[in-house]
Amino acid sequence: MTKPLNVAMIGYGFMGKAHSNAYRKVAQFFPELEYRPTLKCLCARNEEKARPFAETWGYESIESDWRRLIERDDIDLIDIGSPNDTHKDIAIAAAEAGKWVVCEKPIAMSSEEAEAMTLAVEKAGVPNMVWFNYRRVPAISLAKQLVDEERIGRPFHYRATYLQDWTIAEDVPQGGQTLWRLDVNVAGSGVTGDLLAHSIDTAMWLNGPIVKVTADTETFIKERVHQETGKKQPVGIDDACMFLARFSNGSMGTFESTRYARGRKNYNTFELNGADGSVHFDLEDPQYLDFFEHTQKQSGKKVEDHLTGWRRIHVTNFEHPYMDKWWVPGCTVGYEHTFIHALADFLQGVTSGTGTQPDFRNAWQTQKVCDKVLESAKTGKWVETGVEM
Amino acid sequence: MTKPLNVAMIGYGFMGKAHSNAYRKVAQFFPELEYRPTLKCLCARNEEKARPFAETWGYESIESDWRRLIERDDIDLIDIGSPNDTHKDIAIAAAEAGKWVVCEKPIAMSSEEAEAMTLAVEKAGVPNMVWFNYRRVPAISLAKQLVDEERIGRPFHYRATYLQDWTIAEDVPQGGQTLWRLDVNVAGSGVTGDLLAHSIDTAMWLNGPIVKVTADTETFIKERVHQETGKKQPVGIDDACMFLARFSNGSMGTFESTRYARGRKNYNTFELNGADGSVHFDLEDPQYLDFFEHTQKQSGKKVEDHLTGWRRIHVTNFEHPYMDKWWVPGCTVGYEHTFIHALADFLQGVTSGTGTQPDFRNAWQTQKVCDKVLESAKTGKWVETGVEM
Amino acid sequence: MTKPLNVAMIGYGFMGKAHSNAYRKVAQFFPELEYRPTLKCLCARNEEKARPFAETWGYESIESDWRRLIERDDIDLIDIGSPNDTHKDIAIAAAEAGKWVVCEKPIAMSSEEAEAMTLAVEKAGVPNMVWFNYRRVPAISLAKQLVDEERIGRPFHYRATYLQDWTIAEDVPQGGQTLWRLDVNVAGSGVTGDLLAHSIDTAMWLNGPIVKVTADTETFIKERVHQETGKKQPVGIDDACMFLARFSNGSMGTFESTRYARGRKNYNTFELNGADGSVHFDLEDPQYLDFFEHTQKQSGKKVEDHLTGWRRIHVTNFEHPYMDKWWVPGCTVGYEHTFIHALADFLQGVTSGTGTQPDFRNAWQTQKVCDKVLESAKTGKWVETGVEM
Amino acid sequence: MTKPLNVAMIGYGFMGKAHSNAYRKVAQFFPELEYRPTLKCLCARNEEKARPFAETWGYESIESDWRRLIERDDIDLIDIGSPNDTHKDIAIAAAEAGKWVVCEKPIAMSSEEAEAMTLAVEKAGVPNMVWFNYRRVPAISLAKQLVDEERIGRPFHYRATYLQDWTIAEDVPQGGQTLWRLDVNVAGSGVTGDLLAHSIDTAMWLNGPIVKVTADTETFIKERVHQETGKKQPVGIDDACMFLARFSNGSMGTFESTRYARGRKNYNTFELNGADGSVHFDLEDPQYLDFFEHTQKQSGKKVEDHLTGWRRIHVTNFEHPYMDKWWVPGCTVGYEHTFIHALADFLQGVTSGTGTQPDFRNAWQTQKVCDKVLESAKTGKWVETGVEM
Repeated sequence: MTKPLNVAMIGYGFMGKAHSNAYRKVAQFFPELEYRPTLKCLCARNEEKARPFAETWGYESIESDWRRLIERDDIDLIDIGSPNDTHKDIAIAAAEAGKWVVCEKPIAMSSEEAEAMTLAVEKAGVPNMVWFNYRRVPAISLAKQLVDEERIGRPFHYRATYLQDWTIAEDVPQGGQTLWRLDVNVAGSGVTGDLLAHSIDTAMWLNGPIVKVTADTETFIKERVHQETGKKQPVGIDDACMFLARFSNGSMGTFESTRYARGRKNYNTFELNGADGSVHFDLEDPQYLDFFEHTQKQSGKKVEDHLTGWRRIHVTNFEHPYMDKWWVPGCTVGYEHTFIHALADFLQGVTSGTGTQPDFRNAWQTQKVCDKVLESAKTGKWVETGVEM
Repeated sequence: MTKPLNVAMIGYGFMGKAHSNAYRKVAQFFPELEYRPTLKCLCARNEEKARPFAETWGYESIESDWRRLIERDDIDLIDIGSPNDTHKDIAIAAAEAGKWVVCEKPIAMSSEEAEAMTLAVEKAGVPNMVWFNYRRVPAISLAKQLVDEERIGRPFHYRATYLQDWTIAEDVPQGGQTLWRLDVNVAGSGVTGDLLAHSIDTAMWLNGPIVKVTADTETFIKERVHQETGKKQPVGIDDACMFLARFSNGSMGTFESTRYARGRKNYNTFELNGADGSVHFDLEDPQYLDFFEHTQKQSGKKVEDHLTGWRRIHVTNFEHPYMDKWWVPGCTVGYEHTFIHALADFLQGVTSGTGTQPDFRNAWQTQKVCDKVLESAKTGKWVETGVEM
Repeated sequence: MTKPLNVAMIGYGFMGKAHSNAYRKVAQFFPELEYRPTLKCLCARNEEKARPFAETWGYESIESDWRRLIERDDIDLIDIGSPNDTHKDIAIAAAEAGKWVVCEKPIAMSSEEAEAMTLAVEKAGVPNMVWFNYRRVPAISLAKQLVDEERIGRPFHYRATYLQDWTIAEDVPQGGQTLWRLDVNVAGSGVTGDLLAHSIDTAMWLNGPIVKVTADTETFIKERVHQETGKKQPVGIDDACMFLARFSNGSMGTFESTRYARGRKNYNTFELNGADGSVHFDLEDPQYLDFFEHTQKQSGKKVEDHLTGWRRIHVTNFEHPYMDKWWVPGCTVGYEHTFIHALADFLQGVTSGTGTQPDFRNAWQTQKVCDKVLESAKTGKWVETGVEM
Repeated sequence: MTKPLNVAMIGYGFMGKAHSNAYRKVAQFFPELEYRPTLKCLCARNEEKARPFAETWGYESIESDWRRLIERDDIDLIDIGSPNDTHKDIAIAAAEAGKWVVCEKPIAMSSEEAEAMTLAVEKAGVPNMVWFNYRRVPAISLAKQLVDEERIGRPFHYRATYLQDWTIAEDVPQGGQTLWRLDVNVAGSGVTGDLLAHSIDTAMWLNGPIVKVTADTETFIKERVHQETGKKQPVGIDDACMFLARFSNGSMGTFESTRYARGRKNYNTFELNGADGSVHFDLEDPQYLDFFEHTQKQSGKKVEDHLTGWRRIHVTNFEHPYMDKWWVPGCTVGYEHTFIHALADFLQGVTSGTGTQPDFRNAWQTQKVCDKVLESAKTGKWVETGVEM
């Protein structure tokens, strides 16, 4: 038997759209799930602006104050898709009210906030998740599977970049509903929280804890007009961030993110090199995982060095993560499916009782690394992260 | 004001799923559309087998005889997703009943059937469309746009392949609900109707009529167990087909399709070469259109021959066809979106009164080419197609 | 002990340069060879024009009449790099004089000429070779190795293209020393002899005989100024040629060549699909062979369908054909090395007494296919090739 | 009129072969050069081992002590291709004797050595060059040209990797003639001097000085058998090195090199991102330069955002650096040609009197960065480089 799950979505921007789509589609493609989401309520400060969105997506009601959601008995799950500076208060209140809580990344403005949120959901014992959706790109999930199958061997290197180019023009403003990611008071940081948080989450999923970092950041455009004041104001975010890292497994890591890499649109890449194999991924070509298998490990078999090469796996076979849910081999899925997969995994984890990663505690560890990266960029020194996994 | 559109879907296989998804999603991503599809009825011979599908997708009712759909007043549109040998009778009856008719490709078992269907919908004056969904891959729509912008110039060559590898094993059976595409009595032909029909549709969209062809086909596995009889029976379909073509514009074309190209899963490619530019596309990398622009045409500008190269356009900008409806630059869409785009265009064409291509008449022309290809493969001679556009 | 080999080179154009370079380099990279070429004589109709070339390359003497070469006792090998209409007479005279004879491709203007040349060298018993240099691209040699290792299995398909774009402009003239390839009286044919001869040679090396063809050709620019007359004259060559083929092994082939594919410079590609694997090659990326290995054939091993993919083999390992002669893994060789490899194989074949392919007899078979392709383009019918291998 | 140039080559390993090939080929492909190299003398400690090499390459004589070269009047140029610990003494003595001096990279064991060498050649006024051959990959030279043509605009980012995988196995020994690069006493450092020196040279050629760095190194295999002692000894080199950098132009840089990246053979890559464009290069695909041109800069022209994309420039046109010397568009050159180009540029610089980069002074600056990278790896702090350009 299936159970309804009444969802309240906070925020109707880009992420509001991506999450709403996931709630509407998950039951058709994962019909075995116990819970069936219903779009019960959309919450947004400005009800008038939110109404068209609510109608398009079929939300049954609208609230302009998130505190009302806490009080409503007909809400099971609260999805926090509003700007970063709102995450903590909502999450803690929702948890205390016994609601399930899912939250956009980065989980918080700081490690301290993330800790408080984690303790709140754990104390309340409510299901919780942070939307690090890229883990659910089938090719990235496949990379994790190859690691778990011990096909990579002793790890030596990991390198990640997350490059975009949409803020290069000086006349892009900051702040307001559409560009709060450029306003440090609302976003907390620039590319570190927005983009590197993804890279760090993926990196620690595949490699385990990052133990120390040394970093450097830059703000290329020093002042931008603020959409709320109409005035030029200093830019407080990091436009770009690069750092070196060491993992607890002994591997070396390089990370870089920017919004100033002309020609790169959503270029989220990683490569993992181990003694027995390597994998490479690029989010602009998300249907592929490149895999190099070192063949000498196959004892009893003639080494065929004339056949070695990077294998370009088109991750659309029925045997690939999530792909039995969709179409047929050769047919791709896209960006939005990562959210559907994340939601399906979350709902399945609630039913099974095992939970699903990344939960709040896990996202807190990623936040620690983000904080230490920014600290190192200020001090110019290597900093221990204190990640616990 | 929006209007409901009551949809009856015939068939619940792979295409039933793809179409159902399109009906459910189109209103969220194309909210400006006048018509709002409702999944009113699913039609399938075996009601019991169809029931789980109907429940998953939220169909309000089920019918086991398509003739019942014709009689029901609460059905506006009939979508024919059943095997090819059923298309003609359903389409003609639906048209005569005044229903809108949309039909999976290939439109029919033969050019004669396609002609009868075309005349029926035109006589009835009902909106009609054939689901040549690949025209709606954003990159293919962009190719058409570049042609229309006269960026290709005088055309010299067109080459298309559509390669798969899923029938190589001898123990793949034929017939029945899942493998009717291998049964010539139900499918009409093999790769010619299933895959080359797509290639021909795209080719004539970009180039205009194909005027003559010379072809060759092969059936590599001569006998397969039939799922309905359980016995080995001769295979009547073409496993592979290759042909040369001439377009009315003077250009030369090569076409090839097979289900025996090991390693190719849904490898639908084309390349168009003209005096001023070329485009290349591959459905396994659907987010890209490769474009070579011949720069000497830019009068008054120094020719920069050191800068020439194939431009790999990541077709995810807001400026690209359909992409303003989805996410942000760099974020891909996938296979299912082609159906949503096709549906949106169809509904928009009804509202505007201009109709949308490919309609039945257009798909009939493609059927003519398919028929002549098979005829040429038998006679070994060049055959005129008689295409009228 | 090494032996000197006195070489007479006829022609000092593009091929004269490529061959001269091979003679000068082969001993340094293949020091084990018995024969050491010496550039004894350059032969060219216009001695004055040839002199700078002879000096640059260190030729010891110059002759303006190839008949003088036949008479000279100090010449061991005659290399025919002059236009196609000169091949037959020189080759037969050289063979009758007991000279070794190597000849640029295509071997002749027609199958009849090729036959006469073959019979002459065989009667004389002299070492002979035709410069189908692309067999010696390491990646193509590797493809042949994979075929011989039975990694491809039962062949189903072969497709080859050879695309260029350098004759699109109408003001490119024909004829004369530099553009004789556009003059049908000197070249014999257009892309069929110039480019498709390569494609056919490679195809039959990998697959065995082509038994029948149906073809179509086009001359897009009907008239061009002739460099010798200064007048506009009809263009007699085929600008483009496409054909379908059947191999004696049952496989289907598509071939296409043109000089009107904007953006393609020396785009010589092939793909071979068999039951157990596929290979793909592109001469613009000559360091790679793409290989898809069907893993289910490995009995006793769990099928790992999540690992299947096209392997991009960077053909620069010591284990790859010819590559132990050059640098280290990862370091590429280029166009000119194919000639050095061909020469080394030829010289080794003389020493071993086993000869080397393609010899004149083999190149004659390729010429038969070229002739039948052109015949089919005229008649519009399938034509048997009569290839004997 | 041409002049002979008597060359003495020290070393007959991999680099001895690459340089010898350059001296033998340069006059055929750059016939306009004034100087014509002659392979006068090969110098190697063990004369017997060197003899086959000398014979293969046609050296007129052999010396076993490099000091003899200094004394010989018939030597014009001394090419130092012996291990790093020999560079300084030879170079200074050669300069003092008035010989031209060319030296393999890295120029020296330390910045101090490089300084002494620089002062010596400058005091003597002799032509000098360091073989940073990768500047002469046509695609890298083209990148430099695009920078000089101001097509990149304000630079924001530079990222370079140089990855190999040939030392992963624990049983690879260190030291001796073939593996001195793994012996810190002979090589000075590991990947920093061997690979990163190339990356740094290219980076500063394209961007100007690196002003500060923070670095981290690792030695994954702690002990290896030494080929001279036959005993396991500690490994003193850096197996891997990663560092962050700042350029004087304000741009941010990431650099990484390793011999532990499974599947990467000679993967020397860089990407430069500026406000107006980006370029990307990969030495395993050396025939390409990827270029993204930001089109909004073209004032007076409609912005065509649907056409933007990375242009894959096949760097084989006559208009590309060095390519008019070789074959025809579409035909690639390879690894060895970088040395021929470097030599041609050097000889041309002597004739013109303008000299050629990188000379010793320039290579000294690269050595400074290498030293500071290793220093930072020890201290864990940012270090100023002191580069002067």
